Amino acid sequence: MKALGIEGLIILEKTIEHIPADIPIIGDAKRGDIGNTAKAYAKALFSTLGFDAATVNPYLGFDSIEPFISYQDKGVFILCRTSNRGASDFQDLHCTGGFPLYEMVAQKAREWNIYGNIGLVVGATYPEELKRVRSICPEMCLLIPGIGAQGGDLALAVSYGVDAQGEKAIINVARQILYASREKDFAQAARNAAEKIRNQINSCLKAK
Amino acid sequence: MKALGIEGLIILEKTIEHIPADIPIIGDAKRGDIGNTAKAYAKALFSTLGFDAATVNPYLGFDSIEPFISYQDKGVFILCRTSNRGASDFQDLHCTGGFPLYEMVAQKAREWNIYGNIGLVVGATYPEELKRVRSICPEMCLLIPGIGAQGGDLALAVSYGVDAQGEKAIINVARQILYASREKDFAQAARNAAEKIRNQINSCLKAK
Repeated sequence: MKALGIEGLIILEKTIEHIPADIPIIGDAKRGDIGNTAKAYAKALFSTLGFDAATVNPYLGFDSIEPFISYQDKGVFILCRTSNRGASDFQDLHCTGGFPLYEMVAQKAREWNIYGNIGLVVGATYPEELKRVRSICPEMCLLIPGIGAQGGDLALAVSYGVDAQGEKAIINVARQILYASREKDFAQAARNAAEKIRNQINSCLKAK
Repeated sequence: MKALGIEGLIILEKTIEHIPADIPIIGDAKRGDIGNTAKAYAKALFSTLGFDAATVNPYLGFDSIEPFISYQDKGVFILCRTSNRGASDFQDLHCTGGFPLYEMVAQKAREWNIYGNIGLVVGATYPEELKRVRSICPEMCLLIPGIGAQGGDLALAVSYGVDAQGEKAIINVARQILYASREKDFAQAARNAAEKIRNQINSCLKAK
């Protein structure tokens, strides 16, 4: 959709319109810009487009994230340990104190969480890192991509991702549902794929 | 512009159309996403919108940057040491080996520069860090924001930013030119502001 320019933005607005009001919508925009521009991005995502939450990149530090968390009824997921191959290039670098960068991000996120609306993005493709982040932020909401097309382990993602109450883990499956079928049955196929994963998640929760 | 949604994107397209072909256009989008999405962003910025260069965020690592540098006739500026207050939160963290994160980014950028189209973003608001980055990447093009509204020192930015030939530093001044006047004389006022800064830059170069 990002490649389509204006047409893509129109499709995005229409898609958001069609989603029932009781379903939270997360804008996975991964924004990270200086305060001035961050403010404009936050406004675009939360006010103009109407997302309930957004993902942000931590590299520019607190003043790039503050304009987002200021929308206190919106959720802000900070990228912590991402699901892609290249994640290790910088996120795994060990910093003073012996902690890898992604753990420093998790620690800062906890410190910055003055409004209680910060969460973290941690890929299911790296279960041990997910476990570490959950131990640093035992009560934070985690957004967990990497299941499905990216090959993450669902059972481990659920087991390591949920909090002590078995909650606060959002397992994100995109392509496996979105592209379940390219035929006319795409809607039913997507529903089937989503239900299948939901049932698998619930089985994992029971087994935990 | 980012806050305006579709209208903003239309304004952006029209603005790009109006810029003469011999003037390079840098899309300061600070994108950073996984390979799949990065590909779509690169296409949007370089093909759909027609930017000559773009800024990208390093946090997600090489596979988030590769789709951009694959456009070998386009420039890709990786955020290194940004101009904002919060930059120090993570970019200054010391990593194994004793180097701060932003220097690790500079080192990686040099290593990844297989097509010779990678540059770095280093804020004028932190001249010592700019000096360090220039010493790590003596031949790389540097994009230097932070002059004007953000208060960076122009003389130091020029002195520390240019390469041994006094080149390859792009001093970026946005608000001071863009908002030079809100009256009908805005075009002439912007031109005057731009020329003034150009002359100052040239004076700094001569003094060097």
